[in-house]
Amino acid sequence: MDLHELVAALPEGAVLTDPDLLIGYRQDWARDPGAGTPAAVVRATCTADVAATLRWAHAHRVPVVPRGAGSGLSGGATAVDGGIVLSTERMRAITVDPITRTAVAQPGLLNAEVKRAVAEHGLWYPPDPSSFEMCSIGGNAATNAGGLCCVKYGVTTDYVLGMEVVLADGTPVRLGGPRLKDSAGLSLTKLFVGSEGTLGVITELTLRLLPAQPVQSTVVASFASLTAATEAILGITGTLRPSMLEFMDSIAINAVEDEMRMGLDRAAAALLVARSDAPGEFAAREAQIMVEACEKAGATEVFHTEDAEEGEAFTAARRFAIPAVERLGPLLLEDVGVPLPRLGDLVTGIAAIAERNDVTVSVIAHAGDGNTHPLIVHDPADADNTARAHRAFGEIMDLAITLGGTITGEHGVGRLKKDWLPDQLGPDVMALTRRIKDALDPHGILNPGAIL
Amino acid sequence: MDLHELVAALPEGAVLTDPDLLIGYRQDWARDPGAGTPAAVVRATCTADVAATLRWAHAHRVPVVPRGAGSGLSGGATAVDGGIVLSTERMRAITVDPITRTAVAQPGLLNAEVKRAVAEHGLWYPPDPSSFEMCSIGGNAATNAGGLCCVKYGVTTDYVLGMEVVLADGTPVRLGGPRLKDSAGLSLTKLFVGSEGTLGVITELTLRLLPAQPVQSTVVASFASLTAATEAILGITGTLRPSMLEFMDSIAINAVEDEMRMGLDRAAAALLVARSDAPGEFAAREAQIMVEACEKAGATEVFHTEDAEEGEAFTAARRFAIPAVERLGPLLLEDVGVPLPRLGDLVTGIAAIAERNDVTVSVIAHAGDGNTHPLIVHDPADADNTARAHRAFGEIMDLAITLGGTITGEHGVGRLKKDWLPDQLGPDVMALTRRIKDALDPHGILNPGAIL
Repeated sequence: MDLHELVAALPEGAVLTDPDLLIGYRQDWARDPGAGTPAAVVRATCTADVAATLRWAHAHRVPVVPRGAGSGLSGGATAVDGGIVLSTERMRAITVDPITRTAVAQPGLLNAEVKRAVAEHGLWYPPDPSSFEMCSIGGNAATNAGGLCCVKYGVTTDYVLGMEVVLADGTPVRLGGPRLKDSAGLSLTKLFVGSEGTLGVITELTLRLLPAQPVQSTVVASFASLTAATEAILGITGTLRPSMLEFMDSIAINAVEDEMRMGLDRAAAALLVARSDAPGEFAAREAQIMVEACEKAGATEVFHTEDAEEGEAFTAARRFAIPAVERLGPLLLEDVGVPLPRLGDLVTGIAAIAERNDVTVSVIAHAGDGNTHPLIVHDPADADNTARAHRAFGEIMDLAITLGGTITGEHGVGRLKKDWLPDQLGPDVMALTRRIKDALDPHGILNPGAIL
Repeated sequence: MDLHELVAALPEGAVLTDPDLLIGYRQDWARDPGAGTPAAVVRATCTADVAATLRWAHAHRVPVVPRGAGSGLSGGATAVDGGIVLSTERMRAITVDPITRTAVAQPGLLNAEVKRAVAEHGLWYPPDPSSFEMCSIGGNAATNAGGLCCVKYGVTTDYVLGMEVVLADGTPVRLGGPRLKDSAGLSLTKLFVGSEGTLGVITELTLRLLPAQPVQSTVVASFASLTAATEAILGITGTLRPSMLEFMDSIAINAVEDEMRMGLDRAAAALLVARSDAPGEFAAREAQIMVEACEKAGATEVFHTEDAEEGEAFTAARRFAIPAVERLGPLLLEDVGVPLPRLGDLVTGIAAIAERNDVTVSVIAHAGDGNTHPLIVHDPADADNTARAHRAFGEIMDLAITLGGTITGEHGVGRLKKDWLPDQLGPDVMALTRRIKDALDPHGILNPGAIL
C-alpha cells in the first residue's frame, strides 16, 4: 500500500509503520487471537489529522479502525489486515465551563482524567466504567459505556450534549452543543453515541456535568443463596434509587478475599454492595432502608457504614473482582443484561450453563440495572476447555435474549458479539441498521466487521 | 385518489373522508393558514392499522402526516394537500411496571394521563411541557419535548428506553426495551425521538420512570431590571440544581396578574419562579440559597414558601402566561435557546428586535436551561403588523444562532422553522440529515415538508 500521500498529509511522526510498534495496536482487551496487522497506525493530534486520514482512506477504500485507549472488551478496536488503526490517544485537551456545567473534551482523554478535571470546579462526570482509570472518553462515547453509578445516573449517552465527528469521507461536522434542550433537526448526536466507530470518528465531546457527588453511605450484605440476594435487589430498587447496587457471587467473593483480605464472608453465595448519595443524613436513612431490605430477604450478615473511605474500599473490592477472578485463568468477559425481574432467572440459568459445559463462571453484576458480567474462566492451552468456554459464552447471550435482555449492556457489540446481534434485534432492525450504515459510510471503510 | 384499498385494510370507521371532519385535522396549534386539506384521516386503533396505512401509502406514494394530539407549535402536523393524516389519538393503552420502573404507553395517551397512571404506583414521569394536559406522549417523543422540570431532570429522550415504530414501508420494528443499559447495535431508539414523524410512526413507547417527586419548596422573586434577573439565574444555577427555574417579563407578569389577581408585582421588569425538590428539609435549605442569590442580584421582592399548594399556584401562573399574553392578540410563539451565559444577551436582543420592528414581544423562559419562549403579539387583520411580526420571528432565530443557540429547544422544527434550520446546522449536517432521511424513507412519504 502506498502510504506516501497519507504521511504527507499528516504531521511528522503521526504515521507509525514500524512492525514492532504496530503490534501494540492490533488488539484491544478482547485479545482477539485473529486480530489483523494494520498497514499503519495514525496517531492523530487534532481533528484535521482525523479528517485527512479519512479523506485518504475514503479515496483509496482503505479500512479504518478507530481506537481510543484500546481497553474495549468486545473487539471493537481489533485491527484489520492492511487497514489503518486511527488512534485518538494524543487528543487530550479539555475545557470546563462551570456556568453551563459542561466540559468540552477531546476523545483521547481518559475517563478518570475527565473526572479529575471537572472535580477541580466542584463538578462531577458520572459514568464510571470499572476501567475508568484506563479507558478513554472517546471510547466511552463510541460504546455508550456504563459503570456502577448508572443505576441512578444513567449511561454515557445521557451526558453527551454535543460532539464534533468526522464522517467517513473526511467531513467534520458539529452536532448539538452546550444546551440541555435542542430539538433542531434529527438527534444525530445520540445516533453517533454507541455507534462503535462505524459511522464516524468522534473528535470532540460536549459533556453534561453534575455538581460534585455528596458523600455516600454504604451497605454490604452477604446472602446464603442467590434467591435471597436477588430478592434483596428487587426490595431495594422497588423502594428507592441507590447510587450503586453491585453483586458478586461466591467465586468472586473468594477471589477478591484471596487478594484483599477484607474479611468478606467466604461462605456466602452472594454479596451485595449498595450505596446512597442522598444529601446529608438522608444517605444514612436510605442506607437503613437498604439494610432492612437485605435483612428481610434473609441476609446472613449486613454491614453499614457512613465512613466514605470504608465505603470506597468495598467499592474498590467490587471493581477489583475482574482482575481477582482473572488469577484463576484467562477470562471470557460477558456483559449481558435483562429487565430487573428476570435477574434471578439469568443468574441461575448461567449456573446451569456453567455446569452443563463444565466450565467455571463467576457472576458479578451491576445488579441494580440488571447488567451482569459473567466471567468465564478458561485455559487457552486446553482446546476442549476453550471450546466449552466459547460455547458457554454464546449460550449466555442466547439466554439473555430469551429473557428479553441484551447481549451487551455497556461494552458494545464489536466483533466478538456481532454474530448474536441479529438474534437480539431481528432481521428488520438489522436491515434498518444496514441502511443507516450504508448511507453514512457507502464504501464501508469505517470499522468494517464491527457490529455488522 | 382511490381510497378503497386503504378503507378495506382498516377497521370500520378508521378512515374519515367527510370534509367537515377533515377540517379538524388540517392544522396543529401553529395554525398554519397555508395548511393543506388531506384526502383522508386515518384514526389508527393499533400498530397493525398504522402498518397497513403506511404499506398502502408507500405503495401509492401518498404523503402521510403523523399526528398525535395536534398541539404542536411548529406545524409538524400541518396537513398536506391530498395526503393522509395518520392520527394515533385512539391508541391509548398503558401498563406500568413498578419493579423495572418503566411504563409501556401507546402514543395517543396524553402526557398528563401518563403522569396520572404512573402516579398510582408512586412513580413519576418527569417531562412536563406546559401543554401537558393536552399534548400526547407520542407527540412528546416525536418532538423530544421538554418542559419546566428539564433543568434538573432532562427532556423526553432521557426517558425513552425503547419503542415500537413503523417504518415508511409499513414494517413495524421494536427498538430498545425496559433496560437502562443496552449497547447492542446503533442507538436507533434515540434517533427516532425528535424525528418529528419524518423517519417512522411511533406506535408504542417504553418509558423510564422515577420515584414520585418529593414536595417542593418555592421561591418567587421580582426584579427591577432584566440584568438583575439574569444575574440571579446564573447565581442559582452556578450553586445548585433547581427542580424548576422559570422567568416572566413585565408584559407576562401583567397579563397573568390581569387574569389571576395573585398580587404579582406589576412594576417589576422580571419575575423568577424557582423550586427545589431536594429531600426533606434540604428543599428549604436549597430555597434559602436561591433566596440569597436573588437578593444578592438585587431582587426588589423575594417570597419563599414551603406550602406545596401555594408553590403550585405560582407554577400554574407561569404555565398560564401563554394564554394570558394571548388575550393581547394572536401569538407567534418562539422557542429559541442559548447556552446559559448568553441568556441576558438573548433577552436584551429580543427587546431590541421588538422595538425595531414595532411589535409587542413578551418573553417567558425556562430560564434554568436557557430556553426562552418569546411571544410575538400580532394582528392578523393588519397585514403590515403581521409582516413585522414575522420579520421579528425570523430575527429572533437569527439572534439565537448568532449566540451559539438553537432555533428550537423543545417544540421541534416542523414546517414553521425549517427555513432557519440550515442556518443553525450548516450544509454538511443538513446533507447528513438528508442521507438518513433518504435511507429510511426513500419515497419521501413521511411528513414531507417537516424539518427538511
